[in-house]
Formats: sequence, structure tokens, C-alpha cells
Amino acid sequence: MLKLFLAANTCALASHIALEEAGAPYEVIRVDFRENAQRKPEYLAINPKARVPALVTDRGVLTETPAILAFIAQSFPEARLAPLADPFEFARVQAFNSYLCSTVHVAHAHRVRGYRWADDPAAIAEMQRKAPSVIGDCFALIESNMLQGPWVMGANYTICDPYLFTIAGWLEGDGVDITRLPKVADHRERMSDRPAVHRALAAQRG
Amino acid sequence: MLKLFLAANTCALASHIALEEAGAPYEVIRVDFRENAQRKPEYLAINPKARVPALVTDRGVLTETPAILAFIAQSFPEARLAPLADPFEFARVQAFNSYLCSTVHVAHAHRVRGYRWADDPAAIAEMQRKAPSVIGDCFALIESNMLQGPWVMGANYTICDPYLFTIAGWLEGDGVDITRLPKVADHRERMSDRPAVHRALAAQRG
Repeated sequence: MLKLFLAANTCALASHIALEEAGAPYEVIRVDFRENAQRKPEYLAINPKARVPALVTDRGVLTETPAILAFIAQSFPEARLAPLADPFEFARVQAFNSYLCSTVHVAHAHRVRGYRWADDPAAIAEMQRKAPSVIGDCFALIESNMLQGPWVMGANYTICDPYLFTIAGWLEGDGVDITRLPKVADHRERMSDRPAVHRALAAQRG
Repeated sequence: MLKLFLAANTCALASHIALEEAGAPYEVIRVDFRENAQRKPEYLAINPKARVPALVTDRGVLTETPAILAFIAQSFPEARLAPLADPFEFARVQAFNSYLCSTVHVAHAHRVRGYRWADDPAAIAEMQRKAPSVIGDCFALIESNMLQGPWVMGANYTICDPYLFTIAGWLEGDGVDITRLPKVADHRERMSDRPAVHRALAAQRG
């Protein structure tokens, strides 16, 4: 059975929702960030990057949200979570998720985890100050150029949707005015109505 | 015919090498970063993110190195650039490339493009100061846990290899001591011997 290592309020929610959408057999294992469990030897043996999510499979461990999401889509093709038979459309899905991972999530991390890239508290504070505008620029581009509606890739729900939902869930905390992002706001509401999202959020709360 | 938009000394080299390895028909179009061509309307119409690479196909534009690399591997399966028939092994390839994209390349960007995340020159200088240690930590993990040898994924050359080669090519400039990374150094040399790498580098120079 798949084991998803996660912590609440992290990008692991995207993989959690995707497992629910896929109807995959899995269990959740919590990594307690308040106790810094992600840096303890037990967890580093699973993911030496000290991050979540990690998906433990019968064949080994997978990390990195875009890779885990694509793995779920390919492993449960009947759930139709990605255009698997079309390399161009599949690459568009991957490109969107790669942008979330390498640019949008990274922009967010500068508000909450600036210590990754600077030690000086003044520099960390400066990153926090600029973060809302950097994240806002990312989401303005998502709003104007990427999110086709009603789902990210248009008519079909894909593994882009739980990932966007997850990162868009941080917008208020990131100081971005969601009223300027009507398509993103609509997407977030639409996602909130999905039973798989309810189940994942309830499990993370519980 | 595929068109690869690139600039010299950028991560676009990875896609360039992969196109050569695949034997793909393509042409290269240079984006002159010294003239800020990536921010001009002609290029923003191709990639509104103002970055390279962008791969223009008959069906539209693809961006983001991990997505472009997977697209090349899937579009030219006879080149055997990824374990396409095995979702778990394919996800391991994607996870490695996602780590390069979202963590290692991002760490490098803090040395050369800190203005993305801060305006204050002192904060940008602080990111530059810390960058060698952040990049060094990433590569220590690649050396100890990820690079199986002789290629990233072991016996088989994949789309992970040109990407690692590209980012490892920045190590000296990033102030990282390559002598502490013997497997990475060996990989870099091994890559340098490949005809596809010769051709891509020659085309970028010329």
C-alpha cells in the first residue's frame, strides 16, 4: 500500500487530493514539523531532503510534487487525471506543475522560509517584504495566461488542479489580494466542492 | 520543425543536448539576454514568463525544462532517453529533474538573480554570500544519494544527465569546490565526451 508522508498546510496536500481522486489505496503518515521531525534520522532515511511530501511505494520512495502527481496519474489511468496518451498535452500539464514547483512555491517560501537562502535577519525580512509582490506577479500570470477554466487545462480536471488549489490556498497568508484573481478564486471554490478535496482536508485536520 | 529558444550559459543547454541525443529535427533561435530580448513583446508572445528555454512545436509552445525534457523523451522513444513504460522509474527521473529545477537551479539563481526576491542591495549581497554553501549542500546530496553512476539513473543514460551536466557546469562560478564531488566531476567529464554534447555546445558558441 502507498504511504504518503505529509505535514498539514504544506504542498503535500496536492498529492493527498490526487490520491483521493485516483481512488488509490494509501495511508497517511504525519511528519510533525513543530517537532522538526523532518530532520530526524527516521525521516531522513525516507527523504534525505527533509521535505514533504514523500510517497513510499512497494518499489521505493518518490519525492517532488510534480513527479508524485504524474506517478499517481500514470498508475491509476482509469481516474483520467492527465492526458497520458498525448506527449504534448502531458508536457503542458508538467510545465504548469513545474512552474508551480520551481517559481510559485519558491516565491512563497521566501515569505516563510527565507533562512534557506540568507542568514542575515535583515535580508530575510527584505525577502518577506517583497514576497507578496513576487507571488502576486506569479498569480497574475496564472490568471491571465495559464488557467483556462473551469479547470487549469480547460474542460478536463487534471493533476494541475489539486496543485494550484494547494498553493492558491496560501494567497491570503501571502498578502495577495484574491479579488484581483477572479479565475483563481473561482477555481478554488470549484475545488472546494469536490468530495476528494473534502476527504483530504478532513484527514489532514483530523 | 521544433524551434528551441535559448540563451548561452542557461539551463536551455539541457534541452538542446536532449534534442541532439534524440536526433530530433529542430532549429535554435537565440534570445539575446544582453539586450534584454527576453522581456520584449516578440518573446513575451512566445513565453510570457520571460525565460528560456521555450520549445515551439506544431501544436504550441512548451516551457519549463523538466516538461520539455520529458516531451523530447516521449516524442522520440527510439532514443531511449527515459524509462517511458515504467511509471515508477519515470517518476524517479521526473523527481530528479524537479529537484534540479526547483531547488538546485533556484539556489544558483540566488547568486546571479537575487533581484527576483529582494530589492535591497544588501539583501541581494547576502544571498550571493550564502549561495555557494546552499548550492554545495544540494550537490553534496546529489553526490551521496542521487547520482548512481555512471549516469544519474545508473546504467542507462536519461534526460536527467544533460540537465545535471548543465547545472554542474556552473559549479566553479558558484564557488563550489568540485574536488569534493568526485562522482559529479566524473559525470561531467563523461558527458563532455558525448558527440551530442559537443554539437550542442559548439552550436551555442557559434
